[in-house]
Amino acid sequence: MVRGRPKSFDTDEVLDRAMEVFRARGYEATCMPTLLEHMGIGRQSLYDTFGDKEHLFKAALKRYLDKFYLKLMEILDRPGSKLDNIENLLRYMSPNYDQGKTSCLAVNASAEFGSEDPEIADFLKRHYDRMAIALENALESARQAGELKPDINPGAMGRWLVNNMNGLALMGRVGMPQSFINDVLTHTLSTLK
Amino acid sequence: MVRGRPKSFDTDEVLDRAMEVFRARGYEATCMPTLLEHMGIGRQSLYDTFGDKEHLFKAALKRYLDKFYLKLMEILDRPGSKLDNIENLLRYMSPNYDQGKTSCLAVNASAEFGSEDPEIADFLKRHYDRMAIALENALESARQAGELKPDINPGAMGRWLVNNMNGLALMGRVGMPQSFINDVLTHTLSTLK
Repeated sequence: MVRGRPKSFDTDEVLDRAMEVFRARGYEATCMPTLLEHMGIGRQSLYDTFGDKEHLFKAALKRYLDKFYLKLMEILDRPGSKLDNIENLLRYMSPNYDQGKTSCLAVNASAEFGSEDPEIADFLKRHYDRMAIALENALESARQAGELKPDINPGAMGRWLVNNMNGLALMGRVGMPQSFINDVLTHTLSTLK
Repeated sequence: MVRGRPKSFDTDEVLDRAMEVFRARGYEATCMPTLLEHMGIGRQSLYDTFGDKEHLFKAALKRYLDKFYLKLMEILDRPGSKLDNIENLLRYMSPNYDQGKTSCLAVNASAEFGSEDPEIADFLKRHYDRMAIALENALESARQAGELKPDINPGAMGRWLVNNMNGLALMGRVGMPQSFINDVLTHTLSTLK
């Protein structure tokens, strides 16, 4: 019996490469040859492993969102001041051209698809919700530790921080000057303490 | 001498219709038949008047940005309290599903194109800058009228308000619940006064 050649690539690694292509170019503007070139695998391997372009995109987006959320939780769960953790999170997630952090696949996909594809919209809405809840919990801990200004509502502020992070990712995407981005970040952080 | 049939449509009106198609579907995902159907003109008329899809998009985006800015200035220039004007602007520009205000072509184009097309990126960056400057001027007037908290920097806050408006448009685009959007809006407004 002849068996197919075993897969000679790391699935997560090639998915990460697809993720970077989609993040840079968007979904519609990315063609299969570009994906194959960046992923470094053959067309048949791509279809066998991920299915068509739509399924590949959804797998890449899901992986991006999960990695993003894990990083967010890692930063928020660090010991010490919760407000410091939130500040570090915002600094870490903000566009920084020197570090090559210029956009966010979640934000780009939100704008490109809107609510057109129910599965993608569902991924994204759950993602923003869980980000907001994680921030709310961190703010609530800060409140209990006496770190938070008394008139702040942790729930509303958590959602509002998600909004600011998304706005910042969009500003990085279109290439607004680093000084503009830094002003927004500094002003956002100034409302925390 | 036989002369061509005169144009039987209003250029601005059909451009507005193209604008709405691009706003709903994005650039890449919009095909010519869809544009022709919504614009209600023939293929040759479209090419004669606007050129190809790329030129049509740029004309539609430019018109969108100019209309947006004119409306923004109209609201900010109203007599009375400048802070009230800013509040009214933010309420007016925020997504409101009941009123069919669900997304912003500037935000969608920022995410879709990034800095890929230098002309589009230039349109968008100038647009965000002029919005920020208009808000800075309104905040400076508010400061001179004694309306603004003394520790607020009008320039940084103007840029930060642009960021919040863009974040809100993105949340509307992906269909976040109206309650989420209203929380963000209320929290943003609470920092003004």
